[in-house]
Amino acid sequence: MTIAKRAAAEGLGSTLLLAAVVGSGIMAERLSGGNAALALLANAFATGGVLFCLVVAFGPISGAHFNPAVTLCDAWQRGMPWRDVPWYLAAQVGGALAGTAIADLMFGLPAFAPSHHARAGGPLWLGEFVATFGLLAVIWGCVRSKNALVPFAVAAYIVGAYWFTSSTSFANPAVTLARSLTDTFAGIRPADVPAFVVAQFFGALAATALFAWLSPKERSDHVVL
Amino acid sequence: MTIAKRAAAEGLGSTLLLAAVVGSGIMAERLSGGNAALALLANAFATGGVLFCLVVAFGPISGAHFNPAVTLCDAWQRGMPWRDVPWYLAAQVGGALAGTAIADLMFGLPAFAPSHHARAGGPLWLGEFVATFGLLAVIWGCVRSKNALVPFAVAAYIVGAYWFTSSTSFANPAVTLARSLTDTFAGIRPADVPAFVVAQFFGALAATALFAWLSPKERSDHVVL
Amino acid sequence: MTIAKRAAAEGLGSTLLLAAVVGSGIMAERLSGGNAALALLANAFATGGVLFCLVVAFGPISGAHFNPAVTLCDAWQRGMPWRDVPWYLAAQVGGALAGTAIADLMFGLPAFAPSHHARAGGPLWLGEFVATFGLLAVIWGCVRSKNALVPFAVAAYIVGAYWFTSSTSFANPAVTLARSLTDTFAGIRPADVPAFVVAQFFGALAATALFAWLSPKERSDHVVL
Amino acid sequence: MTIAKRAAAEGLGSTLLLAAVVGSGIMAERLSGGNAALALLANAFATGGVLFCLVVAFGPISGAHFNPAVTLCDAWQRGMPWRDVPWYLAAQVGGALAGTAIADLMFGLPAFAPSHHARAGGPLWLGEFVATFGLLAVIWGCVRSKNALVPFAVAAYIVGAYWFTSSTSFANPAVTLARSLTDTFAGIRPADVPAFVVAQFFGALAATALFAWLSPKERSDHVVL
Repeated sequence: MTIAKRAAAEGLGSTLLLAAVVGSGIMAERLSGGNAALALLANAFATGGVLFCLVVAFGPISGAHFNPAVTLCDAWQRGMPWRDVPWYLAAQVGGALAGTAIADLMFGLPAFAPSHHARAGGPLWLGEFVATFGLLAVIWGCVRSKNALVPFAVAAYIVGAYWFTSSTSFANPAVTLARSLTDTFAGIRPADVPAFVVAQFFGALAATALFAWLSPKERSDHVVL
Repeated sequence: MTIAKRAAAEGLGSTLLLAAVVGSGIMAERLSGGNAALALLANAFATGGVLFCLVVAFGPISGAHFNPAVTLCDAWQRGMPWRDVPWYLAAQVGGALAGTAIADLMFGLPAFAPSHHARAGGPLWLGEFVATFGLLAVIWGCVRSKNALVPFAVAAYIVGAYWFTSSTSFANPAVTLARSLTDTFAGIRPADVPAFVVAQFFGALAATALFAWLSPKERSDHVVL
Repeated sequence: MTIAKRAAAEGLGSTLLLAAVVGSGIMAERLSGGNAALALLANAFATGGVLFCLVVAFGPISGAHFNPAVTLCDAWQRGMPWRDVPWYLAAQVGGALAGTAIADLMFGLPAFAPSHHARAGGPLWLGEFVATFGLLAVIWGCVRSKNALVPFAVAAYIVGAYWFTSSTSFANPAVTLARSLTDTFAGIRPADVPAFVVAQFFGALAATALFAWLSPKERSDHVVL
Repeated sequence: MTIAKRAAAEGLGSTLLLAAVVGSGIMAERLSGGNAALALLANAFATGGVLFCLVVAFGPISGAHFNPAVTLCDAWQRGMPWRDVPWYLAAQVGGALAGTAIADLMFGLPAFAPSHHARAGGPLWLGEFVATFGLLAVIWGCVRSKNALVPFAVAAYIVGAYWFTSSTSFANPAVTLARSLTDTFAGIRPADVPAFVVAQFFGALAATALFAWLSPKERSDHVVL
């Protein structure tokens, strides 16, 4: 599989993922009559459902990372060569931005608009650390034991993490950046992005380091979700 | 498996699928006390659950398309012979109409009544394009890699797409036509059907063309959901 | 596996199934503040979740029928010997009654009380016919193609059928009888039971006859959910 | 796999499980505007989703018990050596306490605070007996037939049991203890813990004894969820 096709898969998957995250947030907010629990429930299930089918459909092509934190940790653990990393990251960020624009346009909004949704403070940063730590722990647990249920595990984790972390689990730097450009339910103020991304990388690194001891890499292991 | 049995499976599956889409819409609207988010949540889960079990039950007989866009793209990609296509399309449309009537009758309504639910405009047409593009992308991603999780992927996609597209994801010309004949939650005005169907075919064609490059066909590939 | 153990598995599974159906109905009604959609959503997911795990846990022992309509159709199609049928039916009915009592007692109610919940009329009987037809169609579709996803298919069907049939899909004579003895959310007036059971058997027979043509029996086929 | 790594997996899994149970309870209560059904629905799905992915990720390392009742019954049935049991129990209790603290801190609350949520009385104790009996029945049913669907079965059971038991199904002594130290949605008064734990052990013992007859142990059987 050429790097062009793998990058296209990462980009297309990231596009559809963000369309789902942002689009379902808009729909949920419009229909839920102010009940935030109902809106988050719909947002979580839509995200989980779409993430699941994207992992199933694109995993055999690119590994279905859709997440710079996953790609960088995979390269760090020698699961993929460093020369592929820039292509993956560019496709993930570009796809995420495209997906946000598509979601906004589907609902008659401008393609991009800076979010005014404040998300900051120690408890939320701890939330992002825990969210990304848990995501990478689940991924490494599955990858190291060659567990074929990984699409189910990742989607189930995200549905749960939308609810159990105070930050509603962004857990993905490309997603965080893209969500700063929609002024809707899923948005995050641009100024709040850097701290979220830092917390995400610390969480990803901690889980990766832990699993390097708990369940060491074999030669063939690479992250295919 | 004879074409008679395969067409019967397509017809029966389409009947039960529409009974589920339309019937759960009626139940949801009656019970939800005006909360549209709750109604769409129930409608989405009922549709996803029934679609899943129909794909599992009828996939080995007919491929479980239940969708003219899928059947036509499969024939275009030489997955099934063109001579079978008219039987599939007739069974899908006939089954969808029967399912709508059964749903209405189960709830004490006339079998058929033209819908007054307006669904039109650029954002919704973009929604249908995206919905059908995503559905076919998931299907081709699974079919080309012989992924056995395809029933889960298709159902999870539809649950998500009910929420993330502004059109609530009809993504199926036979379903769209049938839903124009019930004046209930799931309905669509007959006058709004043609534009939806056009958008669906453009989305299906775009995804099929993309995957012809991204993940080319092998001799044995045909769409069995 | 002796008939004693298989009957015990049918009885225990039916007990836990009815505890789930009736118990989650009571909890849902108490917590939902009068919103019937929310109550039915919880009731449907609890039923589907428990049905799934019971099929997985007891399928290898008894086939996990938990349903006289399934057992009788299986015997009719020579999947199980007629001499085992009385034990299965007795265990299913006895277990269902025990489960209803346990549910009521868990919530501080008398073990048995006749229901006052009226469920009757042509649309609801059509609903029960469709519900049981669909259930048996899914079961035969899976059994005849040896599909290992049958626990998922049956549970997903029931979650959907709670919503898309006007009767909320009892689809099981033992369940119907047992639910007549609890005066709670899941109840049905004793006088309404016979018509429901008749509709269920017609639905089961129709689906079984259809699949005898659509996907004929092989020697080894028997209903193991 | 060394006992240190297995105990670490039990501890880390228990941490994330309690973070999910307690954290999603806090989020649900804050967002649901007083609708307890909506809060329990979110709490149940978050718990089920996270339990599923933890079983998938940690099962190959430690068996993914996360539950002293499971570990003790497994040792009783000679599935694991008694010398490993203290490490498992310590990791489960320690992890559960850590997870509760993390959840509270993520939401800006003190790490530990005694709960004021009263949960007592015969119906609730019956609820805990039934909840744990059912959990162990599902586990033994899967383990004894080497059923690979056990992560799905356990998670689906817990989602259902949150709704069908009057106690909302703690079904785990370590979880019960940890939940006594958070004064939030998921809490239980410290004084109510002992009776819950006793009911849980009776339920676990009853199911284990029943399955020793229904589906006897083979040499290789041990509890790997």
